[in-house]
Amino acid sequence: MTIKGSNASALGLPIGIFDSGVGGLTVYRALHDRLPDERFVYLGDTARVPYGTKSLDTVERYAIENSLFLASVGIKLLVVACNTASALALPKIRARTGIDVVGVIGPGARKAVELTKHLAEPRIGVIATEATVASNAYSESIKRASEKPQIVQAACPLFVPLAEENWLHEPETFSIAAKHLKKVIEFRPHALVLGCTHYPILRDVIQQTVGDGVKLIDSGEATAEEVAALLRDRGLESEAMIAGPRSLCDDLDHFYVTDAAERFARVAERFLGAQPSRLEAIEVYGIDQLTREIGP
Amino acid sequence: MTIKGSNASALGLPIGIFDSGVGGLTVYRALHDRLPDERFVYLGDTARVPYGTKSLDTVERYAIENSLFLASVGIKLLVVACNTASALALPKIRARTGIDVVGVIGPGARKAVELTKHLAEPRIGVIATEATVASNAYSESIKRASEKPQIVQAACPLFVPLAEENWLHEPETFSIAAKHLKKVIEFRPHALVLGCTHYPILRDVIQQTVGDGVKLIDSGEATAEEVAALLRDRGLESEAMIAGPRSLCDDLDHFYVTDAAERFARVAERFLGAQPSRLEAIEVYGIDQLTREIGP
Repeated sequence: MTIKGSNASALGLPIGIFDSGVGGLTVYRALHDRLPDERFVYLGDTARVPYGTKSLDTVERYAIENSLFLASVGIKLLVVACNTASALALPKIRARTGIDVVGVIGPGARKAVELTKHLAEPRIGVIATEATVASNAYSESIKRASEKPQIVQAACPLFVPLAEENWLHEPETFSIAAKHLKKVIEFRPHALVLGCTHYPILRDVIQQTVGDGVKLIDSGEATAEEVAALLRDRGLESEAMIAGPRSLCDDLDHFYVTDAAERFARVAERFLGAQPSRLEAIEVYGIDQLTREIGP
Repeated sequence: MTIKGSNASALGLPIGIFDSGVGGLTVYRALHDRLPDERFVYLGDTARVPYGTKSLDTVERYAIENSLFLASVGIKLLVVACNTASALALPKIRARTGIDVVGVIGPGARKAVELTKHLAEPRIGVIATEATVASNAYSESIKRASEKPQIVQAACPLFVPLAEENWLHEPETFSIAAKHLKKVIEFRPHALVLGCTHYPILRDVIQQTVGDGVKLIDSGEATAEEVAALLRDRGLESEAMIAGPRSLCDDLDHFYVTDAAERFARVAERFLGAQPSRLEAIEVYGIDQLTREIGP
């Protein structure tokens, strides 16, 4: 890895996070817990959510627009919290922005390999959206880390609406989980990657459905660990800004959405137990315009 | 009503239909069944679906872009199949395009009033997306037609993903329907408006849940009736183009999507039993650009 933009002035900058909508708040929470001295700028592309059913070209275009917006705000590192965008658009984002970019797929995949490497014949399950499963991004990332594991993937299309509606304890949710996870249960995985930002919200349901023996891997938590290591390696860690623990969504963190800020705040309350102190609705459309402003 | 654009050359033009995605195909089917001599141009804004959770400003902008695209293709009448766009954006669409526009809310509301007008104390239920319910568009439209009915509305957020996943017979679908429709069942309506284009796909589930005594109103079918009357009144009916019955999705009808054409074709097959013969992916972004082209 080359070191880019590592200088004193970058230290004070926040870490940028973008997601297609509210789901990435689970990644924000994981980063916030792991890196209590950092500030964050979060962009939820709520005007164009979801990405999971859209094409490669469209997801790339949206991801680049979001990244250029966050770059124009000023960040020291960009975390792509959206699994679909991480699966499809990471190379293009890297090519178009001058900043370091971390996606959630690689860290989730490496964590799964790490946790099962002591086994002779490890089995890793991956659950994600239709688009992420079809991209094979997790499978390929797991194979790059180790040829050993057998892998089974499954799309769980009803998990996102169930999480957003907060149906976490309803019998229907358990029954739907049993259907969505049938192939995974039959595969008897040692580890199961939660390859969509919404799925950690349903963590208890998923754990009960697949059984306690299966290690669940939250890609957001795995990403937070890798981001912590990256900041340390590059000397980009911030110093503590306030004494004592920080709260989620306090006024040091800035949230932007491309639409429907009220609904975002409501779902944030469900996901994090707090509403953002600083929340703004903005537009990110038009790559060319933004590119002209921040060059080159 | 004033008669606009009623001339010989308009007769041969197709009827335009736009929706946020695939749901409007139920409205296309209703129009196709009712008006076998007409051609249709359908635009599904699959790059930005869903509209039901987005803000007024955003839905208006998307709706105008879609309408201007269809106007630029050449249509004699525009049907806004999307309930959310019909609820929020109809006045703006009318102001920005020179063509006649029909939404699905008014016809659905008027049909409910018509079917219950013989009752002393009619009760009308409305089920729709969060945004449509919050807009009160159905309630207001029902009240404009008659002050008599009592009205209860309910949002059914899990119906859209269940319909798109084709979960039409699963016990979970019935169980979720019982929860979503609890308030409606307690209200004991005489008629129930299916105020979202996806809901007719779940018609059997909904009918079984609310009981056979409740008349279900498909806003798409009600809209097709009003469009037929409108074309007749204005002398805009087309003459039969082919002998014998036409098939859904044959090559006289043209389908455009703003993204993910393959997924659209797949869901169209589920909804209509046929894939579009003519399906193209296009871009509709940038009102100003389009406005310049087709002016003013």
